[in-house]
Order: sequence, then C-alpha cells, then structure tokens
Amino acid sequence: MSKGITSRKENYSEWYNDLVLKGGLADYSAVRGCMVIKPYGYTLWENMRDVLDRMFKETGHVNAYFPLFVPKSLFEAEEKNAEGFAKECAIVTHYRLKADPENPGKLMVDPEAKLEEELVVRPTSEAIIWNTYKKWIQSYRDLPLLINQWANVVRWEMRTRLFLRTAEFLWQEGHTAHATKQEAIIEAEKMLEVYADFVENFMAVPVIKGIKSPNERFAGAEETYCIEALMQDGKALQAGTSHFLGQNFAKAFDVKFVNKENTEEFVWATSWGVSTRLIGALIMVHSDDEGLILPPRIAPHQVVIIPLPGKTEEDNARLNAKVKELLSDFKTAGIRVLLDDDDMKRPGFKFAEHELKGIPVRVVIGMRDLQNNVAEVARRDTKVKASLSLDNFSESISTLLEEIQLNMYDKAKTFRETNITKADSFEAFQKSLDEQPGFILAHWDGTAETEDKIKELTKATIRCIPLNNEQEEGKCILTGNPSSQRVLFARAY
Amino acid sequence: MSKGITSRKENYSEWYNDLVLKGGLADYSAVRGCMVIKPYGYTLWENMRDVLDRMFKETGHVNAYFPLFVPKSLFEAEEKNAEGFAKECAIVTHYRLKADPENPGKLMVDPEAKLEEELVVRPTSEAIIWNTYKKWIQSYRDLPLLINQWANVVRWEMRTRLFLRTAEFLWQEGHTAHATKQEAIIEAEKMLEVYADFVENFMAVPVIKGIKSPNERFAGAEETYCIEALMQDGKALQAGTSHFLGQNFAKAFDVKFVNKENTEEFVWATSWGVSTRLIGALIMVHSDDEGLILPPRIAPHQVVIIPLPGKTEEDNARLNAKVKELLSDFKTAGIRVLLDDDDMKRPGFKFAEHELKGIPVRVVIGMRDLQNNVAEVARRDTKVKASLSLDNFSESISTLLEEIQLNMYDKAKTFRETNITKADSFEAFQKSLDEQPGFILAHWDGTAETEDKIKELTKATIRCIPLNNEQEEGKCILTGNPSSQRVLFARAY
Repeated sequence: MSKGITSRKENYSEWYNDLVLKGGLADYSAVRGCMVIKPYGYTLWENMRDVLDRMFKETGHVNAYFPLFVPKSLFEAEEKNAEGFAKECAIVTHYRLKADPENPGKLMVDPEAKLEEELVVRPTSEAIIWNTYKKWIQSYRDLPLLINQWANVVRWEMRTRLFLRTAEFLWQEGHTAHATKQEAIIEAEKMLEVYADFVENFMAVPVIKGIKSPNERFAGAEETYCIEALMQDGKALQAGTSHFLGQNFAKAFDVKFVNKENTEEFVWATSWGVSTRLIGALIMVHSDDEGLILPPRIAPHQVVIIPLPGKTEEDNARLNAKVKELLSDFKTAGIRVLLDDDDMKRPGFKFAEHELKGIPVRVVIGMRDLQNNVAEVARRDTKVKASLSLDNFSESISTLLEEIQLNMYDKAKTFRETNITKADSFEAFQKSLDEQPGFILAHWDGTAETEDKIKELTKATIRCIPLNNEQEEGKCILTGNPSSQRVLFARAY
Repeated sequence: MSKGITSRKENYSEWYNDLVLKGGLADYSAVRGCMVIKPYGYTLWENMRDVLDRMFKETGHVNAYFPLFVPKSLFEAEEKNAEGFAKECAIVTHYRLKADPENPGKLMVDPEAKLEEELVVRPTSEAIIWNTYKKWIQSYRDLPLLINQWANVVRWEMRTRLFLRTAEFLWQEGHTAHATKQEAIIEAEKMLEVYADFVENFMAVPVIKGIKSPNERFAGAEETYCIEALMQDGKALQAGTSHFLGQNFAKAFDVKFVNKENTEEFVWATSWGVSTRLIGALIMVHSDDEGLILPPRIAPHQVVIIPLPGKTEEDNARLNAKVKELLSDFKTAGIRVLLDDDDMKRPGFKFAEHELKGIPVRVVIGMRDLQNNVAEVARRDTKVKASLSLDNFSESISTLLEEIQLNMYDKAKTFRETNITKADSFEAFQKSLDEQPGFILAHWDGTAETEDKIKELTKATIRCIPLNNEQEEGKCILTGNPSSQRVLFARAY
C-alpha cells in the first residue's frame, strides 16, 4: 500500500493528522470541531479507560453519573470557574423544533419552546456535582466522598485538532469531598501519582510532575498539580491535572458538614481529570514516518499473525493447523492477537498496513518456517526482525512485548532528557527555543507579569514548577530579579 | 432503620420512587427531568453494560464514538425520523456566555455568539452516523459495518420518572450497514435475540419478543422488533428495540456501495438500543415492600457478610480471622462480597439496610455459629434463612446464588403467565384491564384507526405482534372485522 504519510521533517502537524486519519483512530465530523472516534481509536481508549478505572477503584473511588446540562444559575455560582469557562460554552436555549412554514420539509427552532433558564453543556462538572453534594453531605460520617465520572464534555474551542483540542471530548473527572484541608491535598497528590503511574507504565510516556503557576491554574482551584510530557517536535503537552480546590466550591454551593466536635465546617474538595487528549500525546511521543507505534500494554492488537500459504492443499492444511494452535496459545496467554489471512492482499501491503496501525509485533509464517519450526518475528519499535522457535512461542512473545514496552519508555525518556536544557539569560532561552526546542529550566521572578511577558515574546509558558524542585539562587531571565529555583518552560500544545 | 417505604398496595408509583431514592440508585438533579445516577445504581449499570458489551463483541460488533451534536440540516435529512424526534429536542443555539452588564457577577448568553446553524443534542444518532458512513462505505468489501456506541442521549420529555423516562439517559445504540436486505433483517433479529438473552438470563426478567404495529414503529424504520416485559402492577414495559431501517437512511444520506457485479446500490441498515430504562424494569419486576431485590448475576454486591462480635478480644480475633478467610475464598470464587463490620449500627438496622439495597444473600456469623462451624444464611428473594456449614462455604454460596437467579426468573415468569389473558369482546377487554391488568391477547383488524381508537378508549396499546404468533381466525374486538391472529395489548410505561 502507498501510505501517503507526510514525514515529520516535512510537516510535523500534517504528519500527526495523517497518522490519526490513516491509522484509523479518528475522523472529522459534520460538526465543527467535533471528531468521530473510529473503532480502532475507541478500542485504544477502552484499553486506557479500563486500566485507569481499575486504578481509581483500587484507590477507593466509585463511579457515578451526573447530568450533561448545568443550569446557568448554578454554572455562575463559583465565579472564577464560571469566568474561566464562560467563553467556550455550548448553550441550550430551546427544547423543540417545528416544521418551518417557509421551507417545506425543513425544521426550525420553535420560538415558543424557549427555556426559562438556559442550560450550559458541561465543560466540566464541579458546579452540578457540588450542588448535588450539598444534599449528600451532612456529617463527617459522609466523608470522604470519592466519586469519579466517565463522560463527554464540551468546550467551544476556536482552533481544534483531532484528539488534542476538540469541541467535544471524552474524559473522566474525579470529584472528592473531604473533612480536612490536609486530606484533600493528599488526595490531589495521590491522583497525580496515579496519573503518572498510568502514563509512564502503560502509555510508556515519561512525565514531569509539578504544580502550575497561578496563571495556569484551573479556574477555581487553589493549587493545580500536573504531569507534563515532551513531544518529538520539542513541544510540551499537559497529560493530566489534579486540583486542590480548597473550600471554593463548598462555599459557592454552601456544602457544610458537622464534624466530630459537633461544629459545622465547609467541606474541602479536589477534582482531577484526563481525557482522549492523551491519545494525541501517545501518537506524538512514539510514532514515526511509517505510522503509529503503540505500546503493547494498551495496543488494541499486540500481535498480528500473517501466514504465507504454500503451494499444496496439504501444506496449507498444516499451516492453518499451526496458526490455529498459535492463536489459541496466545489467547490463553492473554495476548491480544489479530490474524490477517486475507488472500486478496499481498504480504508487502499487509506489512505496511500493520506498521501504519502500530501493532507492536508482526509474526510471519511461511512453509519453510513451518518446516524449521520457526516464525519470522518483527518488532514495530526497532524494526528488528528475527527468526524465533515455535517452541514456547507465546512465552517468547510475551517476553518480547514487555521488552518493547520498556524500550519505548526508555527511548522516550532519553529523548526527553536530551531535550531538557538550562538557560541563564533571555537570549540563551530564545536561542534554545528556536534551535533545540524542548523543556527549558530557567529562573523566573515568580510574578504573573513576567510570565505573561515571556509568553508574549516567545510563546513559551511555564509548564510547571517540578515537585521536589532543586532550590538554587539565581536571577530571573527576563527581569534579573532574584529567584530561588528554576521552573520548567516550553512551548506547548 | 425505619425505611419509610410506601407499600405497593398503597401507592405503586410512590413505592417505585422510594426504592430508587432510598435504595441509593439515583437522585433528582437541579436540571428539569435529568437524574443523577448514584454510585450504587451506576455499579449496577456497569455490570449490565459489561455483559451486553461482551455479547455485542462476541457477535462481531466494535465500539466507536460519534458527536453529541447533530447539525439541524443533517437532523432533518431523514424526514420521518426528524418528525418523530423534533418535538423533544434540546437545541444549542449559542457558544458563549458573557458578563451580564445589568447583573454584576452574573452571566448572560452572548447574542454575538449565535451559531450559524443550530445543533440538536442527539436524541438518537442515525443522522450523524449515516452522514459519516457515507465516507466509510464505497464497496461491498466495506460491508457489513457493525458498530455500537455507548453514549448519553437527550429527549425532552414532559413527564419524567427516574430511570423510566428522563430527559437525559445513558444507552447503547448499534448502527449497522449491510449489502443486502436479507442480511440486515437477520442482524435486526439477531440483536433482538441478544437482548432477550440478556434480559432473561441476567436480569431474570421474562420477555415476549415481537414486532411493533406500524403505529408504534421507530421513526424511520421499516420494521421494529421489541421485547416486552410485564411489571407487578400489570403494566408493560418495552425493554429493548431493534430496527430494520431498510434503505431509508442510505437514501437520505446518499450511502451507496459498489457490489460484486460492479453496480452501485443503496446500503441496508439496522439500529438497536437498550438504555438505563432497563433498571426501572428490573426494580418493578422483582422488588417488594421491604426494598430492592437484585438478581445475583448483575447485583453490585452478591453477598453481604455481617460478623456479630463476641465478648472477649480472643473471640473477636478468631471471628475476624474466619471472616477474612471467607472474604478471600469469595474473591477467589469470583463472588462480589461486601463486609459490613460497622460497629456503630445495630444488626437489625443493618439487616433492614441490606434488604432495602436488595443484596441477594446475607451471611451472619456470631460466636456460637463459629463454634459450630456454621453461618446463618438469608436469601433476599424468599427471605428463607438457614444455617450452613462453613466447609466449602464459597461453593455453597455460589450454588445458592444460581438458585436465587433461577428462582427470580421463575417467579417473574409465573406472574407473567398468570397475567396474560384472552379477551374476545371489547367489554371483556375493558374488564380485564380494570380487574386483572396485564397482557391481553385479542383480535385486531390490523388498521391504525382501530389501534388509535382502542388506545383512546382504554389507554391500552398494542405492545407487539408476537414472533411465531399462532394464527387463528377471529373478529376484531372493536370493529368486528375479520382478523387472522391475536395481538398483545397492555397499558404500558
């Protein structure tokens, strides 16, 4: 097959779109800024979701479901949160269509079916959830409340990109309520660790954990924790956030509890989320000019088997019997395997197709292989091919899959380490951004004005102040004012 | 605990609401007609979803995700479908809020952010999906296309009931495309069988399979298959539908394929769905005046263990050790178990609470039980208690859970059989509806007018024409016109 994939060098952004579309992950839709997640992309999301869901449950959370719509009066209750999302909200104003008298066969919004109060399609669910928690929380015995929701949300973005920034996206949002400030902070930090664990160990994407500067905080949060990853073009991508919300939502929605001392107090809150945006990061960290490269632990198919038929019926009966045996062994071993025995396509076409789809391991078996009790095994990550014995084959493949998983992480980590530089002057900072884009550790005077100015001049933002950051005296690269630590800058998605 | 549940006899509809709210399944929300699905209810839905999802995958379907919004011009393309849903659509008309100059701190819809084309919040996704399938289908090699979606949908109902009829609900919708009419019909029938299998064998709810009369067909379908269940108040509930859509959507969205003979043809379609409404059926078929009764195969917790502490620390150490051992055995056996060792609540309170929640089996172990190597095991369905040996306890409980599952189905089936009557005159029909509400088999002349008139006079509708229906000459109960078969009437939810 002719893949027609733009190379990264030629046009990185086209390369990304080509992989998403031709790799079968997603498609454009008839709705501005909304995507269709195709079966292959959705299976990837299911695999990611299942792992995360297990992790949430293991840390004591349960799932629930809250309404899609937020009445405007609730939406505006927490002012900072409302202000942060007001500019990108889809608003439902009517509840009926009717026949358009001027256009036979067409419909129009029925002006008589105007809602008394407009409904905001949730861009995030703090408002509707905290309004509900008010009913559910009376005493310290109702706390902590540890709830997660898997849902779609809508943010009316002006510039959209498949997976990275879409008007509608899928995500999970955890919303927890606690009796003490300390407990809420521990929860926010714990969920950051869960995200880092997932992204590093399942997506094979190394991340830097940190806290956001006040400018970049979630609207309505007291502290935003984040994990930041580095893409192959040297731009950063925020892969997940966890917020300590203080008592802001409790106060906005009047959520109090009676503590053990029989006194009323406001509840402490966190929220945390990751979305289908993670798939964008996954693509941009690992893939190459031949197509996707997916980490085995979440790949829809971990292995593809391609039998090469022989010349006689007898040969093929033997080949088919062996393939059937391998498929059964793989299934027993819990390996997700795809059989490609389509006899309408040439092997070369198939190889290219499965490379494009990023299947971690390709197994090819021809008649001579069968005779020698081996198969040709090709890794997608390194493209190394080897002839492997068919004895204990599923064990060999399981081991290989783990090796690929770790190698992908190591490779991404090495890339990231190579692309973290330090800059001690604004000139060096600018030069680094232009010549070796990546993360830049630099001193900053801690003010929002300086952060804004740097962003205006260079398009780079503070990605985070790393957790357990090394303390070091220095001078702000822009103002020369004193600084006690370097912070992590980058241009970002 | 005082449960405060209204009895069925007193007020069936209040009884239902009490179970939903006090059983912890769902709650009202701040949005008119929308519910909050609480953790216990959502876990039940997850269990149902997981079984169905496996069944869909085993029958060759894959999941994908399509946009929440449908542009009005697409929505109106298939006229019958559009007409059927136009009166209950939430419509997005704007994409931004702004500060309200007349109300400081409040927001208003920004009149400058009016959409050029209004967006319908999907009430069902045929339109957006078939508009996408147009891009995906060119040749017979692209068929069949067997896709399912798990999603939220919105239908602006005027009278809402928790789970049974809510403005927003969760569901799955399968949308398949086929090369031939025959293949599409087989698919629609196959999915009806999958639904019947699920509802009968996992929800323990017996159903009657049939086809809808033209009046009751899905808007845009050529044939609607359905499963109908009978509630304890004698009203019917449609538990799932599967539609043969003919070429209606293919024509509306111009979806053609090149067949093996190299000729262009329109594609044949099906769609099929079940929703959180099923939870309403589950409650109304099985539960009693003490609370929910949940079938073991989908119950969030299958067993609750309540230890009754002794008087000495030594006693309690022995009791705790035994309970720990049982929990571990249960987990190994795949039994979903809850431990209730809360020492702030009396046993009687706990018993009532777990009865309300419908946990199929309650296990109580006190010191004397421990001494005798037994536990007191109580079934929720029959309320029978027995002392069971702790030897091979998890095997005994597994067997008991299966027994409960089958008993619940048998009981519901007996109730249904007892409440199917035949009526041979309109008087008998009305009498039956008033005195022994249930399904009524009666002759109908096959016209929409007669069906409408019967509905107007009695509020009963044709639930379905049963599959493989017995042919029998007779006269329509309303008009006396000739009829070749009885059809299934009932008042319905």
